[in-house]
Amino acid sequence: MTIECGTSRIAGCQFTLFPMSDDFAEVILSTLEEVDMSKVWKSTDDVTTCIRGKRVHIFDVTKALFLHAAKTGKHVAMSGTYSIGCPGDSTADVYMDESNELMNESSSKAVQQQAGCKFSLYPLGEEDYMEKIYQQIDWSKTTEVSVSHAHYATRLDGDVHDIFRVLQQSFEQVQDVVSHVTMTFTISANSPSNPKEQEQ
Amino acid sequence: MTIECGTSRIAGCQFTLFPMSDDFAEVILSTLEEVDMSKVWKSTDDVTTCIRGKRVHIFDVTKALFLHAAKTGKHVAMSGTYSIGCPGDSTADVYMDESNELMNESSSKAVQQQAGCKFSLYPLGEEDYMEKIYQQIDWSKTTEVSVSHAHYATRLDGDVHDIFRVLQQSFEQVQDVVSHVTMTFTISANSPSNPKEQEQ
Ligand SMILES: [Ca+2]
Repeated sequence: MTIECGTSRIAGCQFTLFPMSDDFAEVILSTLEEVDMSKVWKSTDDVTTCIRGKRVHIFDVTKALFLHAAKTGKHVAMSGTYSIGCPGDSTADVYMDESNELMNESSSKAVQQQAGCKFSLYPLGEEDYMEKIYQQIDWSKTTEVSVSHAHYATRLDGDVHDIFRVLQQSFEQVQDVVSHVTMTFTISANSPSNPKEQEQ
Repeated sequence: MTIECGTSRIAGCQFTLFPMSDDFAEVILSTLEEVDMSKVWKSTDDVTTCIRGKRVHIFDVTKALFLHAAKTGKHVAMSGTYSIGCPGDSTADVYMDESNELMNESSSKAVQQQAGCKFSLYPLGEEDYMEKIYQQIDWSKTTEVSVSHAHYATRLDGDVHDIFRVLQQSFEQVQDVVSHVTMTFTISANSPSNPKEQEQ
């Protein structure tokens, strides 16, 4: 089976927002009210939410959802997988006709929030995939976030806007040269735990 | 860069347990008290926990953690990535000398719990990776869980023991033939949401 670069570069993200509070449902609903998802296709169930469309909107929406949930001050996390070029994905979608104008950047900019994030890049169907991963780790160290190595992942600490910029840039740079790329992430804010790693 | 099957087949899982309740810290602590993690290497911080060791213990521990958290009756989810054969991973570990006797199966068996789960398999460094993924989806349909297709993932519904059996078997079967494999999952229990998918 040969994997070809799809003519449609529709991207997607399957994710879950986790407010660690008794009123998790209210936090999710109020967050959804504040985020404009009109430029992405959306499907949601009790396990995950999936959005699909242009890359700029996928990152705009996921960053906005995390920021508006985190500004409640509650301990919130988001975990998910960005994906592009999946051979099983549909090749055309009406949402690819949307303009590149970001619907949430102005309201997101108003939220200042620190967070910790772990992410992993998976360029698929390529034998030299590890080199592409190491290139992105090297590049991320030149950015404003604090970068550290974790098992199976790279940890980013800093402002949420900077963290999502690194996630988006890493994803962009690998999908430029690899047809099918996925990128997993878990981002956490307002945790009462000490961020310092503890081994036993 | 050529990827070779590592001589050490240490596996790992990087995951986070998300109790959606004000007392999330207590739920996590009480769960940790009930789960025997003595046969795995463990590292934890405010974003994720990473365990490493033999595959049987990685699945034994992750299933036990989810079950003991879910039996509180609270809405809990767990999200993470199983990994094996990562070229960046260390090749030897004292935890690989542990016996295969499961430390948590008897206490896990006492917990009956329904859940929904989405998972994705990523065989890395292989051009025919999609065939290996489709083979696992076909196989999972022969099991006791309900299997459905989601964007970028396969959804499993059923008893938590059955779900983890499918996860482990899928991972086992792919790692038999592919050196570096990762498998992402999000599993959710006691959600007040309707599990039926809603598209907009
Ligand atoms: Ca390519």
